[in-house]
Amino acid sequence: MSSPALTFRVHGAILEAQGHYVRCIDDDRLEDWPGFFVDECHYRITTADNHRRGLPAGIVWADSRGMLVDRVSALREANIYERHSYRHLLGAPAVLSAEPTPGVLSAEPTPGVLSAEPAPDGAVDVRSETSFLVVRITGDGPTDLFASGRYIDRYLVGDDRALLCERVVVCDSSRIDTLLAVPL
Amino acid sequence: MSSPALTFRVHGAILEAQGHYVRCIDDDRLEDWPGFFVDECHYRITTADNHRRGLPAGIVWADSRGMLVDRVSALREANIYERHSYRHLLGAPAVLSAEPTPGVLSAEPTPGVLSAEPAPDGAVDVRSETSFLVVRITGDGPTDLFASGRYIDRYLVGDDRALLCERVVVCDSSRIDTLLAVPL
Amino acid sequence: MSSPALTFRVHGAILEAQGHYVRCIDDDRLEDWPGFFVDECHYRITTADNHRRGLPAGIVWADSRGMLVDRVSALREANIYERHSYRHLLGAPAVLSAEPTPGVLSAEPTPGVLSAEPAPDGAVDVRSETSFLVVRITGDGPTDLFASGRYIDRYLVGDDRALLCERVVVCDSSRIDTLLAVPL
Repeated sequence: MSSPALTFRVHGAILEAQGHYVRCIDDDRLEDWPGFFVDECHYRITTADNHRRGLPAGIVWADSRGMLVDRVSALREANIYERHSYRHLLGAPAVLSAEPTPGVLSAEPTPGVLSAEPAPDGAVDVRSETSFLVVRITGDGPTDLFASGRYIDRYLVGDDRALLCERVVVCDSSRIDTLLAVPL
Repeated sequence: MSSPALTFRVHGAILEAQGHYVRCIDDDRLEDWPGFFVDECHYRITTADNHRRGLPAGIVWADSRGMLVDRVSALREANIYERHSYRHLLGAPAVLSAEPTPGVLSAEPTPGVLSAEPAPDGAVDVRSETSFLVVRITGDGPTDLFASGRYIDRYLVGDDRALLCERVVVCDSSRIDTLLAVPL
Repeated sequence: MSSPALTFRVHGAILEAQGHYVRCIDDDRLEDWPGFFVDECHYRITTADNHRRGLPAGIVWADSRGMLVDRVSALREANIYERHSYRHLLGAPAVLSAEPTPGVLSAEPTPGVLSAEPAPDGAVDVRSETSFLVVRITGDGPTDLFASGRYIDRYLVGDDRALLCERVVVCDSSRIDTLLAVPL
């Protein structure tokens, strides 16, 4: 069981991590985006309809930080002439569970597990959900509602930062541009 | 007077409660929604224009948790064919006052006062306001700005949770669908 | 270097300050708005395009709290017949740095520096960025996306409040109404 004090602490840590996450994307520093995930992460984008019906196929699917790096490279090649910018607005996370996991992270890096990061003491395994809204700005043209939905997340929260182990992006609408130009 | 430390603590507690509140509604778990209120609560939805002119009539009006339960039942009967979904985005609360209220909640449940919840020690009576924006998603159709406004809230904040005593939902626009399909 | 504990504390303080900031503007209490800044503040509104190209000219430019007061007076005279209202939605701040600054604020007020406020002990000089979205409501007409962008901020965070030393408002779109009717 999560204690209220633990929930409160991880809530603040996740809120702060999300502020940096959206800033990275909206500033178009996509190369930094995989750094918000642990090495052995899972990331996918799907629709509410597919998610509800348990359909595995998503719009985007990645099973490691390396695949996220590849995704960014592909976006950079494809979107040379991209004229849009994006703005993510996130709600406060709802923390669903927060379990201390002393064994998962250790001072001795385990190959493939958070190897890129010094391991914090007393990490916490957190499940949370957060609403998002993304607007798209077209140069001096109109600003549109681009996407809304929720992140279904699993975070590892250490003393000094929170990293994503899993992010499932569930878009509310089924009408999502399949050539998604930015991460969500 | 509120102390900065107390304000800071209740600010975090309310922020977290709001994350769960909007998740409950947007996930269409409306039956859980009354659980965010104390038994003897007040909830109403009104417009900024009516609120400014002190007009009592609101779009929705309830004076107990039981009436919220009834409201959900009515919505379920009326909206069998509802095809929309909603996404609430909330700002950070502005805490207006936070007063310890040792007498209001006690370990001995008082009939009708928080009887459904174990009473926390050292509850705090908090007044706060929070901005909201709700978008409506129509299947694979467009996403609209559905409503914006502010919550004028009174919370009881205990050690492990925050419950609403009062929520007045003031919608910015006077053009609100009077057949509101979801709680705000 | 910022410590995680310090970052966490200032993150909460800024989040709370922003809740009050947007409430002040959206409630049309513009006369209170300069009170969120220190006396010797800098405030300007510009576009992402101008900001990226390093062009100094902004849509709005002020270099003291007194200029903000003047701006509000001018808005009040110009917008007697204003029929719109606005709603600001802000994301969680990304704290970029947080440095204790014992020398900047002192118990002995320095003329022109925070003279209107009792000086907190142990103030922290904080750089942060926050996303914003503003919608505009026209009486009983439609609600539009009015502006999106980010605040590039420098805050002085004391024990009991956070005051803005600098706010650069970078609007995503270049199509911004040059007769901005409210502060952003």
